[in-house]
Amino acid sequence: MSSITKPATAVSVLGVGAIGSAIAQALLAAGITVTVWNRSPGRVDELTARGAEPATSSAEAASASPLVIVCLTDYTAVDGILDDVSDAIAGRTIVTLSTGSPRDARHAAQKAESAGAAYLDGGVQTEPAAVGTAAAVFLYSGSPAVFEEHRTTLETLGTATYLGADPAAAAVQDLALFGLWYDAQVGYLRALEAIRSVGIDVEAFAAAAATQLGHVVHATADTAREVTTSSFPRGPADLTEHAHVLEQLTELRHDQRLGDGGLDDIHGLVQQRIALGHGPEGLNSIVE
Amino acid sequence: MSSITKPATAVSVLGVGAIGSAIAQALLAAGITVTVWNRSPGRVDELTARGAEPATSSAEAASASPLVIVCLTDYTAVDGILDDVSDAIAGRTIVTLSTGSPRDARHAAQKAESAGAAYLDGGVQTEPAAVGTAAAVFLYSGSPAVFEEHRTTLETLGTATYLGADPAAAAVQDLALFGLWYDAQVGYLRALEAIRSVGIDVEAFAAAAATQLGHVVHATADTAREVTTSSFPRGPADLTEHAHVLEQLTELRHDQRLGDGGLDDIHGLVQQRIALGHGPEGLNSIVE
Repeated sequence: MSSITKPATAVSVLGVGAIGSAIAQALLAAGITVTVWNRSPGRVDELTARGAEPATSSAEAASASPLVIVCLTDYTAVDGILDDVSDAIAGRTIVTLSTGSPRDARHAAQKAESAGAAYLDGGVQTEPAAVGTAAAVFLYSGSPAVFEEHRTTLETLGTATYLGADPAAAAVQDLALFGLWYDAQVGYLRALEAIRSVGIDVEAFAAAAATQLGHVVHATADTAREVTTSSFPRGPADLTEHAHVLEQLTELRHDQRLGDGGLDDIHGLVQQRIALGHGPEGLNSIVE
Repeated sequence: MSSITKPATAVSVLGVGAIGSAIAQALLAAGITVTVWNRSPGRVDELTARGAEPATSSAEAASASPLVIVCLTDYTAVDGILDDVSDAIAGRTIVTLSTGSPRDARHAAQKAESAGAAYLDGGVQTEPAAVGTAAAVFLYSGSPAVFEEHRTTLETLGTATYLGADPAAAAVQDLALFGLWYDAQVGYLRALEAIRSVGIDVEAFAAAAATQLGHVVHATADTAREVTTSSFPRGPADLTEHAHVLEQLTELRHDQRLGDGGLDDIHGLVQQRIALGHGPEGLNSIVE
């Protein structure tokens, strides 16, 4: 199928804020006919001056191209747009690029599909300036055939990473990476709160904290393997030793402004695993 | 004072498990007279064969040297030893090397001091095999004059890091570093739990997770500076944007086995800061 290897000849972009506008420009630069629409005029005039076709309604924009990229900040707005264009998208492919929950993504997929459209859910992991280069990472999930059909076009925007058939996968990976950042960053803020309370030098501690986080970074592949193979070597400490430290740590954190980071619950899971005879295993065993 | 620059001529080690035994050997190697005691015979005979003096009671061991290192796994045992030796330690310096809570450390300090002894609280961040080399890091807190008096002797054990006059400081740094590891490692396990639920490839995710954690590692010094100067630039996202992501993330984590990592509480702190007019600041602003 020629559609697998050649870029689309026409793409519509609904929502041309900072990212949507950068996407429209990258598509124009690839020689694609681009129809743009935005709720407020915004950057539409500027894009029209660069060769884009302005549409007077979202439905007109959506009907203009086989591939329709919806680039809005949140799913409430996406939901409204999908209602507005539902009579115009049969036979087309809708790609949404928004930070939303898995439930939002599945809801949008159902809505698009019940209007006769194919659907890909996307996540944007880039600043606008990088769009159009390989440094711009976009995450996609949904039908693998639909992704393959549009892969070449989507690759004009940046690195296109396909995550799986579940339309929620892009949203989940996006949120999972955000969550990892929050857990580590807030964990570090908790550590700073604790050491400042006893007058320890913060700058020297920062270096020790970087080393400590480095242990987690270096173990990411090993940890993933332990989880997928359900094999949990003790490593530097077993669950019985972890239970002892977690008890003292939750005591230390009891009065901290930033809370205990859920470690009291983790302590409970560690104790459950010990009670089931898994005391000699490593911490990762709590995923079972 | 010659005692500042020369090692002690005699040190007692109470508790000669894996770490205590390695400490006794490092002291012997430095030409120091070492008296050892252990509740069960354990490694006492082996150390005696290497030149250590065996004591028949903890009080006899404690009275034998100006510097007494108590090397037991937990503070309950330390507490018992301090009772046993209370009549024998006036004028001596007690150093405890145990993983305990700040409260345990302050309690031990008071007990030693009320028996007329000086006190340093210590933390061990090393495997036994490294003791006696610079790679073995020991943390100490308590009177700076007492630390300086014994610094040269303590440096025969490894790198001696002094953390401050509060005797709890060593315990707090030890626990704070453990806590940072738990937050980041369990955060990563939470992320793996989420992405596996939608069929995302775990190995590819591990690489993305390492990159994401790298952002926290690279920012440790900047974050410390923001916290000490109470200045919180927005960075990649401001509190209003974080509130939006945290809402979706806590929804995603609502049913996760490993819990929400306390992010619902953090979401609440973010909303409080926004209500106080700090919406344009970065996440680190929640420490205020």
